[in-house]
Amino acid sequence: MTKIDLLLENLLKQDVAAAVISDPVTINYLTGFASDPHERYMFLFLLADKQPLLFLPELDAARAENTLDFPVIGYQDSENPWEKIRATLPQTDFAKVAVEFDNLNVTKFKGLETVFTGAFVNLTPLVQNMRLIKSQDEINKMLVAGEWADKAVQIGFDNISLNKTETDIIAQIEFELKKQGISKMSFDTMVLTGNNAANPHGIPGTNRIENDALLLFDLGVETGGYTSDMTRTVAVGQPDQFKKDIYELCLEAQLAAQDFIKPGVTAAEVDAAARKVIEKAGYGDYFNHRLGHGIGMDVHEFPSIMAGNDMEIQEGMCFSVEPGIYIPGKVGVRIEDCGYVTKNGFETFTKTPKELLYYEG
Amino acid sequence: MTKIDLLLENLLKQDVAAAVISDPVTINYLTGFASDPHERYMFLFLLADKQPLLFLPELDAARAENTLDFPVIGYQDSENPWEKIRATLPQTDFAKVAVEFDNLNVTKFKGLETVFTGAFVNLTPLVQNMRLIKSQDEINKMLVAGEWADKAVQIGFDNISLNKTETDIIAQIEFELKKQGISKMSFDTMVLTGNNAANPHGIPGTNRIENDALLLFDLGVETGGYTSDMTRTVAVGQPDQFKKDIYELCLEAQLAAQDFIKPGVTAAEVDAAARKVIEKAGYGDYFNHRLGHGIGMDVHEFPSIMAGNDMEIQEGMCFSVEPGIYIPGKVGVRIEDCGYVTKNGFETFTKTPKELLYYEG
Repeated sequence: MTKIDLLLENLLKQDVAAAVISDPVTINYLTGFASDPHERYMFLFLLADKQPLLFLPELDAARAENTLDFPVIGYQDSENPWEKIRATLPQTDFAKVAVEFDNLNVTKFKGLETVFTGAFVNLTPLVQNMRLIKSQDEINKMLVAGEWADKAVQIGFDNISLNKTETDIIAQIEFELKKQGISKMSFDTMVLTGNNAANPHGIPGTNRIENDALLLFDLGVETGGYTSDMTRTVAVGQPDQFKKDIYELCLEAQLAAQDFIKPGVTAAEVDAAARKVIEKAGYGDYFNHRLGHGIGMDVHEFPSIMAGNDMEIQEGMCFSVEPGIYIPGKVGVRIEDCGYVTKNGFETFTKTPKELLYYEG
Repeated sequence: MTKIDLLLENLLKQDVAAAVISDPVTINYLTGFASDPHERYMFLFLLADKQPLLFLPELDAARAENTLDFPVIGYQDSENPWEKIRATLPQTDFAKVAVEFDNLNVTKFKGLETVFTGAFVNLTPLVQNMRLIKSQDEINKMLVAGEWADKAVQIGFDNISLNKTETDIIAQIEFELKKQGISKMSFDTMVLTGNNAANPHGIPGTNRIENDALLLFDLGVETGGYTSDMTRTVAVGQPDQFKKDIYELCLEAQLAAQDFIKPGVTAAEVDAAARKVIEKAGYGDYFNHRLGHGIGMDVHEFPSIMAGNDMEIQEGMCFSVEPGIYIPGKVGVRIEDCGYVTKNGFETFTKTPKELLYYEG
């Protein structure tokens, strides 16, 4: 059964016979066709008992036709897309139409209201649930993306020097990856030195790498349609004992959560497994974000691993475990691996060692 | 008068006393505070006769407080943002509330419906109109971004070699820019050789640079909060006469449009000025996209320079002029400059020469 058939089958159980997919990543997930229409419009129309239909900018229509085995309709910039959609669809009267509430702006939503007569229901939860449990094939792709992240962070380590700035090192990492055929990072690579790392959303700049301080790398690679995401914090020179203690505390929390994960526990309990280690040591206020996020084709996916989320962890779920301790003006540490839930535990996609590594500045 | 005051004044003329800004770029435009909340929530609440209020993830709250002179409310991942917004806002009953239809997903829209009692009206057109006409200060920033794009494309030219792939050259461009402190491109840099350039949305890969062919560069730089975007197509070795003729045709079309632009003409007429040159030569079908797009803080902004858009061109508007001719399997050319409308004409942000440049492979 194709993913499209599975989605339609699930919708029909809820008496929904029409769906409009607007998230380019969901379209890629369902069809294998990857495209970003930017501010233009791309919709995958799935109507029960009809062939799927992809509506997209004319610019990308030929490529879609070569990839897909169902009809593709392109529109020109000067055409009214809604008129063309109305003229193209074989049926527009449905009791209910499912659309992705999390990935449909109000302008497009109101446009679709001029196409369909039915009530709109939220497709996002069903798509999230389909994408939540990764197949072995997906996990294999994520292992590859993880391997590239390990290579990337190693390039970063190899370039540590007091003569370099944060952005120098980022440039070197991305250059060497691009030379090896990796064209896309999962997000803007972060290299943060000293106090800049003490800000959980610090922005890399032309700060020179500090000596006797910690240095944080947060990066990921997108390859084969899947993403990776990892964080390592290393020592440059000889950081003082307090910084080393905070590092060890963060590592203890990260390992506690990783060890705790298995099918049947809840997301909130996983978060708590790490958080209580940091709270017990008196630094709970400095760990001011959720423990983790789902990951897959998008680098941030459903679900959040956080307090209040009683979702049960299941085999095949993939998410990050990334406690951080940020004490402004003093020290910042984050340690992050993404991984997948196995029958009995949790395996990480990234394998770079986690004992505090020391580098000469 | 601040931009926020100007926006509220315009809204009050339409009897709207409340606005919610959800587009991070609009928030940056109005306040100078730049942040990307990703899948988390960030809203700027503007209520008549009240102080503005920025609601955002706790992670970024401290940085916002240091930047802004009005209240900032952070929320934790484990908090319900809608409850916190309801508890925080000094007033939620308004006849009308303006929200950005183009930049608000249905989930957030429905969340805001639980906060406010009034009818929702579309704020996007007003924001687009405010951002449409650039101030001298904005134009100066865009000239800087354009200068960096010129430097970037020159790095590309300097790296042309038959031993290199498209992605090798991209890696080199971005590496050298990052070393000079440019951390962000406006979009994924494109270097397309030979037939790959004949696809208007071709994707760079490990294709080696072809000899006796054209090579297309499309790139832009983001700096100081503003973007640039340019395309140049150059010759590698000695392309045949047909390829050279298509290049000259595209250039003639681009210059015809640039020369035509001045206050008072319409966007559709500007598009036609370029298009008729290509149509007259019999290649109209191979120019299958709009002539241009607005540019500013976003690389693609309102308005579209295309058939059917009767908007009058005004002094201070900034947009791209980018005709392209893509003949599958044969040749692809695009030439693009962005520029700003002056009292009498159009000045480009990018200055790289446009006569066909020849490089040794």
